[in-house]
Amino acid sequence: MSKTILINGMIITVNATNQVYKKGAIAFENGKITYVGEVPQNLAEYDEVIDVQGDYVLPGLVNTHGHASMSLLRGYADDLPLQQWLEEKMWPIEAQYTKEHAKWGTYLSLIEMLRTGTTTFVDMYDNMDEVAMAVEASGARARLCRGMIGFGTEELRQSKLEEASSFVRNWNNQANGRITTMMSPHSPYTCTPQFIEQIVSKALELDAPIHIHMSETKAEVEQNEKEYGERPVKHLEKLGVFSKRSLVAHAVHVEDWEMDILAKNDVKVSNNIISNLKLASGIAPVPEMLSKGITVSLGTDSSASNNNLDLFEELKQVALLFKGVHNDATLITAEKALQMATLHGAEAIWLEDQIGSLEVGKEADLIVMNTKQAFYQPAHNPISHLVYSGSGRDVKDVFVQGKQVVRNGECITIDEEKVIFEVNRLVEQF
Amino acid sequence: MSKTILINGMIITVNATNQVYKKGAIAFENGKITYVGEVPQNLAEYDEVIDVQGDYVLPGLVNTHGHASMSLLRGYADDLPLQQWLEEKMWPIEAQYTKEHAKWGTYLSLIEMLRTGTTTFVDMYDNMDEVAMAVEASGARARLCRGMIGFGTEELRQSKLEEASSFVRNWNNQANGRITTMMSPHSPYTCTPQFIEQIVSKALELDAPIHIHMSETKAEVEQNEKEYGERPVKHLEKLGVFSKRSLVAHAVHVEDWEMDILAKNDVKVSNNIISNLKLASGIAPVPEMLSKGITVSLGTDSSASNNNLDLFEELKQVALLFKGVHNDATLITAEKALQMATLHGAEAIWLEDQIGSLEVGKEADLIVMNTKQAFYQPAHNPISHLVYSGSGRDVKDVFVQGKQVVRNGECITIDEEKVIFEVNRLVEQF
Repeated sequence: MSKTILINGMIITVNATNQVYKKGAIAFENGKITYVGEVPQNLAEYDEVIDVQGDYVLPGLVNTHGHASMSLLRGYADDLPLQQWLEEKMWPIEAQYTKEHAKWGTYLSLIEMLRTGTTTFVDMYDNMDEVAMAVEASGARARLCRGMIGFGTEELRQSKLEEASSFVRNWNNQANGRITTMMSPHSPYTCTPQFIEQIVSKALELDAPIHIHMSETKAEVEQNEKEYGERPVKHLEKLGVFSKRSLVAHAVHVEDWEMDILAKNDVKVSNNIISNLKLASGIAPVPEMLSKGITVSLGTDSSASNNNLDLFEELKQVALLFKGVHNDATLITAEKALQMATLHGAEAIWLEDQIGSLEVGKEADLIVMNTKQAFYQPAHNPISHLVYSGSGRDVKDVFVQGKQVVRNGECITIDEEKVIFEVNRLVEQF
Repeated sequence: MSKTILINGMIITVNATNQVYKKGAIAFENGKITYVGEVPQNLAEYDEVIDVQGDYVLPGLVNTHGHASMSLLRGYADDLPLQQWLEEKMWPIEAQYTKEHAKWGTYLSLIEMLRTGTTTFVDMYDNMDEVAMAVEASGARARLCRGMIGFGTEELRQSKLEEASSFVRNWNNQANGRITTMMSPHSPYTCTPQFIEQIVSKALELDAPIHIHMSETKAEVEQNEKEYGERPVKHLEKLGVFSKRSLVAHAVHVEDWEMDILAKNDVKVSNNIISNLKLASGIAPVPEMLSKGITVSLGTDSSASNNNLDLFEELKQVALLFKGVHNDATLITAEKALQMATLHGAEAIWLEDQIGSLEVGKEADLIVMNTKQAFYQPAHNPISHLVYSGSGRDVKDVFVQGKQVVRNGECITIDEEKVIFEVNRLVEQF
């Protein structure tokens, strides 16, 4: 197999000591990283030597919550509260969704994510076969699940559960291991306790982790208390959701003792900071969760509530917002924010042995950024520049498992023009 | 003179009715806009017809507070509180600044601003002749002032006052009217009341507006109360700062009755939302100020506290933050945010007759964005896409006074490579 090395890069490893090689190199073979360090002498041993001329090289970002198909709804409804946005705008139009919508919506999202340096993402939606096929074709990495909303008949619920289970059986560890799966009750406010327990039991049987929306809005927490006599964290703990591996999206309205429950059960959190602001859901207690040792990663949520999938925006936002809100400029440093977007993302989906940092033995999921621009000058501190001044638009080249998927800012695995044409064609028919 | 028309663009006018022409045209001649509307029949009358093929065309953004020279300090110190950042990091290194630092720092900032669609900016610093010369050469538009810190001897203060006054006399309405000026006491905590009164009196004599930092941090407000028995707003009102035209930067810690004073005196506000978050200064009451009829515009502050000058980031942030903080998703819509970055910016520096919207008779300061990308699909709502999904990195072409300054994402009036070289050369000598 071909041996590739990138040389003369600012190699930002995000390893345990946050090591940065100012003029370093990274090599890979068979999809795995074989070398990280100073530029070695033995360049003749490599089949391909790429001189990145000082550009930054870093691990691909990990987006831990989203609904790729929903990109068809970007800008369809803004500046509305969550429940109204969901019930009056999103759900009626989503009811018209077919496999075709899922397919082209996912491709549109894949273009955005890959071009802005996200190499791995979590997706929860329906028509997941379409999503998985698009992921496979695009060369991206994803942890996918069929999100189950429990409204309607018992028959419908059971058919969804069977569909979700089949999806796990069919797709886990497919696409050369790039696709992994989960089981996903949509949320405690859209699934009865009984249905959640059924899903948990099936997840244990399939050895699949669980992904669920939780405590996104105050109203949802209050409704949970009224209906079940508990706030969502305790409610889900009782239903066994946290008994094995679980990833919750949002966790905006969680009290101190609830964070203790999340920490005790090693529940992973996907913080969706921009979507939570835009839908006026609130601001999650991220510094508090981090200080309790909870793994907090970053997610975009869908581009219908964000409105893009450029995780560099979350990276900057998480390093800014808490400073201003708590009047403490030392909260969530640039280094911590970068970890959250990479290594903690990998940990949140139990792939930290494979991705999330540039280390020998891990998969070669990495991005090269065009940092010869004004935004990255002068050369004081690359991690600061990346977080506070950078943009996903600066990503130039992207590799997943050592295979290039973006070259000079263009997706080479997806026909971007065709996707944009199909997306607009479909939307005109709504 | 040459007559130019851009056709087939999504023309976002930001006029009084927020008019958008889906497939429109805009024409200009002698630096002024001569037509905005549907694509006309008489294209043969134009010397240059540019088909922008559906790309968005909008007014150049207006950045109403910054210190361009300070870009040399980007990433030099982060994650520190304002006073420590200023006193231990910024001021010691700024003491080493020469004309050369001001020159190349300003050019670096100009590259960032022009490339991200800011055509007009406010600058407060010293060595302002260097700043003005760079603005003139770059083709940008700016309202400039020599910021006066009142520490040191009386002789030093008087020499600064003379320098600031000469700057106004020499540069106001220069560069074909693209440069206008102000007088600027740095802040109530760095200038004595006597010095501020002297500056106000000189400003009235020169018919120059006043620009000042005000109420950026809680500590500064408390110090003002302790020293002068008043909070800064009342203090500055008494000193005559608001007696004619004035623009205050920050206004983070202002109480309801203080906003009434600002409204009554038609004081313009530059909200620096990202810098205020990053330095943990707090969150200004923007929705409250807007509802009192105060003109609130957007500024980046310097790239030492931001850390870039891409005003599209402020544009998105101002549309997001208050929704999340106040649990109201209807606060500051995309349309209002866009106004703040354009028309309100023009109003904040008394140039609304010349710039801030695309209307016949105004100056041809406009930007074209590459919106054929995934981020702008599907075509539901261009203003939403611009604010929530767009990025300054998507700006393709920029015109100021009808003259092109950015073409295909590159500054054509500045040698970018040389600027980056000089900036790093200077910084290595610190």
